[in-house]
Amino acid sequence: MSEQEDKFNRGVALAAKLFEGAPAGGVKMSKAFRNDTMGHLFGDVWQRPELELQERSLVTCVALIALNRENEQRLHFTGAKNLGVPREKLEGAIAHVAHYAGWPNAVTAFRVLDEVWPVED
Amino acid sequence: MSEQEDKFNRGVALAAKLFEGAPAGGVKMSKAFRNDTMGHLFGDVWQRPELELQERSLVTCVALIALNRENEQRLHFTGAKNLGVPREKLEGAIAHVAHYAGWPNAVTAFRVLDEVWPVED
Amino acid sequence: MSEQEDKFNRGVALAAKLFEGAPAGGVKMSKAFRNDTMGHLFGDVWQRPELELQERSLVTCVALIALNRENEQRLHFTGAKNLGVPREKLEGAIAHVAHYAGWPNAVTAFRVLDEVWPVED
Amino acid sequence: MSEQEDKFNRGVALAAKLFEGAPAGGVKMSKAFRNDTMGHLFGDVWQRPELELQERSLVTCVALIALNRENEQRLHFTGAKNLGVPREKLEGAIAHVAHYAGWPNAVTAFRVLDEVWPVED
Amino acid sequence: MSEQEDKFNRGVALAAKLFEGAPAGGVKMSKAFRNDTMGHLFGDVWQRPELELQERSLVTCVALIALNRENEQRLHFTGAKNLGVPREKLEGAIAHVAHYAGWPNAVTAFRVLDEVWPVED
Amino acid sequence: MSEQEDKFNRGVALAAKLFEGAPAGGVKMSKAFRNDTMGHLFGDVWQRPELELQERSLVTCVALIALNRENEQRLHFTGAKNLGVPREKLEGAIAHVAHYAGWPNAVTAFRVLDEVWPVED
Repeated sequence: MSEQEDKFNRGVALAAKLFEGAPAGGVKMSKAFRNDTMGHLFGDVWQRPELELQERSLVTCVALIALNRENEQRLHFTGAKNLGVPREKLEGAIAHVAHYAGWPNAVTAFRVLDEVWPVED
Repeated sequence: MSEQEDKFNRGVALAAKLFEGAPAGGVKMSKAFRNDTMGHLFGDVWQRPELELQERSLVTCVALIALNRENEQRLHFTGAKNLGVPREKLEGAIAHVAHYAGWPNAVTAFRVLDEVWPVED
Repeated sequence: MSEQEDKFNRGVALAAKLFEGAPAGGVKMSKAFRNDTMGHLFGDVWQRPELELQERSLVTCVALIALNRENEQRLHFTGAKNLGVPREKLEGAIAHVAHYAGWPNAVTAFRVLDEVWPVED
Repeated sequence: MSEQEDKFNRGVALAAKLFEGAPAGGVKMSKAFRNDTMGHLFGDVWQRPELELQERSLVTCVALIALNRENEQRLHFTGAKNLGVPREKLEGAIAHVAHYAGWPNAVTAFRVLDEVWPVED
Repeated sequence: MSEQEDKFNRGVALAAKLFEGAPAGGVKMSKAFRNDTMGHLFGDVWQRPELELQERSLVTCVALIALNRENEQRLHFTGAKNLGVPREKLEGAIAHVAHYAGWPNAVTAFRVLDEVWPVED
Repeated sequence: MSEQEDKFNRGVALAAKLFEGAPAGGVKMSKAFRNDTMGHLFGDVWQRPELELQERSLVTCVALIALNRENEQRLHFTGAKNLGVPREKLEGAIAHVAHYAGWPNAVTAFRVLDEVWPVED
């Protein structure tokens, strides 16, 4: 198996673990971009050791809150839950980021959080 | 001392600790916004327990990278250094966020990091 | 009643007045962020005298158009209507901001305006 | 016919050609902004010779991907198809822009592309 | 004089009035974009009656704060001053918009305000 | 030579060709991000055949205008010049994108264009 295939497979495995139970949202990408995503992003960048996996997940969630990317929040808030990030930490991060990126982003994020990770869980 | 004054003082103390050694950049704000900043943001939001202080610092840095806010990065990258966040963690976060917010934001952030926290430190 | 509770109550009262008749969109926030929103944002910032309430409403609408925040536009365009801001003023602001933030933001805003404040009103 | 009316008519004609078959999305704009859009934007800016029409279409799509403007992508990806821009070129542009504006924008764009220009076409 | 020339001249006159005393920042634009700016934006959009000139100025400043456009703030904060918008109103708008667009934008805006409209004025 | 090293070398060669004569701006990146940039972005994504090199350059410039990324515009406007993209095409793209991303972005871009590619050239 080539290094490229190995990265791709590791990326697919990580994505499956992160997004288990996330709202279905399979997007038909070009083959090249699917390689960028599975091989490079999940198979290489996400696997690096400078940040623990829970930290990467939190970093990703914060970036998506700051950028107001609602659909990707659905995936990565689920990912945070699957990795064991405490819900309180996400709530704290949303309220914190509200002050750096604006209230509407926080309202979006709380709505998504309630949708993919309701409190009763 | 009123609750408001107490928050304000705690905010000023935290900001002094965070930004010690940061490039001078005192901005003349209105009195009301200075209260919002010292009393509400640093004196209340930043003092909440859901995130440890190092985590809040990392969350703030990530939001500022995602938003490409260069001047505030100067302050908060210094803050991360002062709080003991490892430089490698910031480097990892910058490269990670590059994929969610775009390469130019990462280039900006590495430039600021090199400026306020050179490797020789 | 403490100063904090007083602010919170004034914030809740203002939000009720602003958003009367707005599309339902209650979001489950953390308790801390609900305090930030009702106590700090609506109970303090929005109550300050430098801008009249109609002006604050227009300022808020313009910020939300510039930021392309569709859900919050639903609330604050309704708020502008409830406060007596003329519809023509909002229309003029949308077309104006189109030139500073881009056409797509204006198209979004006209769609939301037509939805929450149809011309027949 | 005045110069203004002539521009307006040319703009309406170009928009009709670009957006034929696009998902219905008529937005009620103010009269002034409709003039800005049909007379100035489509009737003047889009008619200028420095860029060929296919190039303008690609430039517009790229800007909308970079800005993550989903609704306008529906119109202009259809426009690119109507003008004969190859689908592969759009796919390549989306994956390319992912690296400058972030992955979530590319995921949005691939979703919209699949919706308005499915591969089976 | 054609309608186009008339608009252009009115636009140049308004821009001269707005930006008198602003930091020099003449930018070499293409001829077409100079026409877009002077003829369409300042000569047409800015001259419309739905908003008074002071209101248009405030709307523009708010959009530029929300978008964090520092250079244009230099011009339009000066414009607000030239038109007689009270400084307190701008200060209030900056602190208000901080909550919708994030703290770093407000810090930028207060810095620019202090630069082009110092309190001692 | 491994596939990774090969990509890295091809990326370095392309970047050298693109950015010849650009304002010096070497940024000290982490080793991992330098690999992401040279190996993945310039060595892989930029080398794909769906877009010609001149088109990739224009696509990149447009994304950077839409995102208002001034420093990267310095590099990529120089790149467009080095690759033989006509200056008029960039001017047309800037004025076009003004309408989708806002006037301030176009003013920034014309300023950078005048700086790295003055008309007298």
